[in-house]
Amino acid sequence: MIEITDTIIDVAAVEAAVGGPGAGAVVTFMGTTRDSNRGRRVISLEYEVYAEMAVEQLTGIADDIRSRWPGSAVAMVHRNGKVEIGEASVVIAVSTPHRAEAFEACRYAIDQLKHVAPIWKKETFEGGEVWIGSLADCDHGDDDHGDDD
Amino acid sequence: MIEITDTIIDVAAVEAAVGGPGAGAVVTFMGTTRDSNRGRRVISLEYEVYAEMAVEQLTGIADDIRSRWPGSAVAMVHRNGKVEIGEASVVIAVSTPHRAEAFEACRYAIDQLKHVAPIWKKETFEGGEVWIGSLADCDHGDDDHGDDD
Repeated sequence: MIEITDTIIDVAAVEAAVGGPGAGAVVTFMGTTRDSNRGRRVISLEYEVYAEMAVEQLTGIADDIRSRWPGSAVAMVHRNGKVEIGEASVVIAVSTPHRAEAFEACRYAIDQLKHVAPIWKKETFEGGEVWIGSLADCDHGDDDHGDDD
Repeated sequence: MIEITDTIIDVAAVEAAVGGPGAGAVVTFMGTTRDSNRGRRVISLEYEVYAEMAVEQLTGIADDIRSRWPGSAVAMVHRNGKVEIGEASVVIAVSTPHRAEAFEACRYAIDQLKHVAPIWKKETFEGGEVWIGSLADCDHGDDDHGDDD
């Protein structure tokens, strides 16, 4: 499951997509919209995703993971459009036979997503709004994504 | 939320327990019952949890995490009794403002759980069954828990 969606992400469906009788460990990452960022009170976020290219990039990341961690399964869903406070902007689930690999692979997936995906974000805060630019452009450890780093 | 339960774990409820407007990242770990272990075809698992002591130990781990990772929230649920193939035996969700800490804290939580919790496991496989002993007793990187390491 690799998807870009305009609606609330069904986390259970993302997790179910990687489950199976051989999956001993499932690690899920959810990046959610925080109510504050860099000292500003955030009202909402809006993502603009170049969907066709994003799906291609995410598919590449998933292929990479399955090759680096044999026996793994990966599912990734990212929101497009407006995301309210508390909602998940991205959900990634990875299953592997053992837990260490599930943590490593899921961490790798979100790091890679932030590095390569053609996704832009507009933050609406008290007093104004700003386009923050592509996640890839500002991937320096504080890239201001849903999880703000 | 710290619970020992005889029924299927509601993963969404565990995740919701750590959500909130300040939570930028949520990482969830699910340890699920695999259909094979050490070359044996597993039919089911049965956990025997000393519930009162387990809740106390898990509460201690959660307190430890909140103190190590300020701003974090932790929820942990472990099954007791019979667990079918594919079902989660343990679910841990951790939220933090930023993603690196969420991965670290969730990994720490499951490692600590396996290290200290008074939980025993009986594996029923094709041809027999065996009590595997407490998770703490066999915590050597291949402790044969739900996620088999």
